Amino acid sequence: MYAPGDVRVIDAPDPRIEEPGDALVRLVRTCVCGSDLHPFHSMKPNPRGVSMGHEYLGIVEEVGADVATVRPGDLVIVPFVFSCGVCDFCREGLQTSCRLAGLRSRRGSEGAQAEILRAPLADGTLYKVEAGEERYASLLTLSDVYGTGFHAALTGGASAETTVAVIGDGAVGLLAVLSARLLGAERIILMGRHESRTDLGREFGATDVVAERGDDGIQAVRELTGGDGCHVVLEAVGHLPAFEQALGIVRDGGRIARVGVPQYTEGPIGRSQFARNVTITGGVAPVRAYIDRLLPGILDGTVDPGRVFDVELPLSEAAEGYALMDRREALKVMLRP
Amino acid sequence: MYAPGDVRVIDAPDPRIEEPGDALVRLVRTCVCGSDLHPFHSMKPNPRGVSMGHEYLGIVEEVGADVATVRPGDLVIVPFVFSCGVCDFCREGLQTSCRLAGLRSRRGSEGAQAEILRAPLADGTLYKVEAGEERYASLLTLSDVYGTGFHAALTGGASAETTVAVIGDGAVGLLAVLSARLLGAERIILMGRHESRTDLGREFGATDVVAERGDDGIQAVRELTGGDGCHVVLEAVGHLPAFEQALGIVRDGGRIARVGVPQYTEGPIGRSQFARNVTITGGVAPVRAYIDRLLPGILDGTVDPGRVFDVELPLSEAAEGYALMDRREALKVMLRP
Repeated sequence: MYAPGDVRVIDAPDPRIEEPGDALVRLVRTCVCGSDLHPFHSMKPNPRGVSMGHEYLGIVEEVGADVATVRPGDLVIVPFVFSCGVCDFCREGLQTSCRLAGLRSRRGSEGAQAEILRAPLADGTLYKVEAGEERYASLLTLSDVYGTGFHAALTGGASAETTVAVIGDGAVGLLAVLSARLLGAERIILMGRHESRTDLGREFGATDVVAERGDDGIQAVRELTGGDGCHVVLEAVGHLPAFEQALGIVRDGGRIARVGVPQYTEGPIGRSQFARNVTITGGVAPVRAYIDRLLPGILDGTVDPGRVFDVELPLSEAAEGYALMDRREALKVMLRP
Repeated sequence: MYAPGDVRVIDAPDPRIEEPGDALVRLVRTCVCGSDLHPFHSMKPNPRGVSMGHEYLGIVEEVGADVATVRPGDLVIVPFVFSCGVCDFCREGLQTSCRLAGLRSRRGSEGAQAEILRAPLADGTLYKVEAGEERYASLLTLSDVYGTGFHAALTGGASAETTVAVIGDGAVGLLAVLSARLLGAERIILMGRHESRTDLGREFGATDVVAERGDDGIQAVRELTGGDGCHVVLEAVGHLPAFEQALGIVRDGGRIARVGVPQYTEGPIGRSQFARNVTITGGVAPVRAYIDRLLPGILDGTVDPGRVFDVELPLSEAAEGYALMDRREALKVMLRP
């Protein structure tokens, strides 16, 4: 990506093993993320371009001398942040804060919208899986969006005892619905305006859909909940009005879990949240931590999170993929390298 | 209180039973709260005066026709918010959101810095206790500051597995230390500048004291924690710099529990908190919910939270009590009606 709206597919040198913990992974599926649209709208032009993409499914092609857990030929999920797997944060399941990688460093690795990835810290990062091509779309969601939706539902405390609202009908929002259902929630209100998306949300478990936003949306959710709002609000947008909406629909004593990347630095966290004992949680999802838990349902066909991909394009048409998502003509675009 | 710095003890008509759920309580101890200092500094002058105080220990004098659980002569703790005890919020232990009282309404009741209180919803609000006068100071803390400190420690998730920092060496901060210790925390860093207070904090369980504030304080706490910060930060001040300090010393994946009343409406809750998966929790404490748990330790002498009262004055000298606390010459002033 060179500038807002300017996405080009170029020939780049193949990556090579640089550290003994590296693996080279030939990607079989990758995609465009809703968060990629933020720079697509507002990045500072960069004449050298920025390598994009962070969701990967691929086949190991070569491994460095220290790699013990994967071999060439293995199908692997590559979480969107890399992690060593052995530091205290990784062991606690907060791989996003890994001391050797996480959000601190990509260790020189390039983006996922490519043919080949150099995956650093392969033993801690890559997750080997055995599955046929019909599962590829769902497996790819474990690289980011499904794990991110699950992070929202888990940190938000979704359960059979809670009423849950999900703000945002993008892929993460819809998979937050699926995750809340998985954690037992029986009443799930999805806030979104795109009927084809909210229809999929209903299939994932949403019991109510609210298309209104702002004060009207708050009013509608409050009416659905006897005036009180929801115990758990999963905010999967990232813009300040979405957070303000979350504050407006959360029940006293409730929890807001944010998984949309905040496009703001300051926000309302004063006396009104304090008086109502509202907890604000969530964050960048350590998706690596959730694969053990989420994979079985995909492999046995209980869930099909890959349905969030409604358009598939060859990697060479990545620019068209961005444009379709930007125009809301695609929910999420899968790319085939 | 009529204006900043202007506290007067006046003769007022005795309250009377107004609702059948009311009780009249003759106060035996009351006090000045750190939060009373906020209006003491900045209230809008009010020629009719504002009745102050919200921490009460007293003896029931008269009850309304519907009151079933207390009788004249009973010694009772009066939590600083009133609650019906039967609505869903009360049953969940969030009495601050009680549908009939809580922070919504004091049902016409006046402040605690008085001789007699009309306590509405007596069955849900008053907590009967049997104890001698030597326990009065500690029992009074269950009306607010001990329960508030405990709310911080509990919502913050203090435990044997966590390193805890407490910001603020006022009564709530010190009792947050005591509460964190009670919940098993073994490493407790108290941030405060008043040595007599932090000494009491050490007796309550603080293992380290950091007198620096701002960036120096953040640096000092990080040094004490191997660079990482604390799993749990209990913010017992309420000013924005204290919250910013909390963000600076919380470990990735950690929790900030606020119990100092925020003196700000907007604050930093953007991408840096999000990237680090920091949870912001706490709020106005439903202290009524905690008396069952905290009272036994007081009655058997295991803990002595009443030590936060370092000055005792007759009610007639309430103005002097405010002045002493404002000048930081008293930690917390007990008033004897």
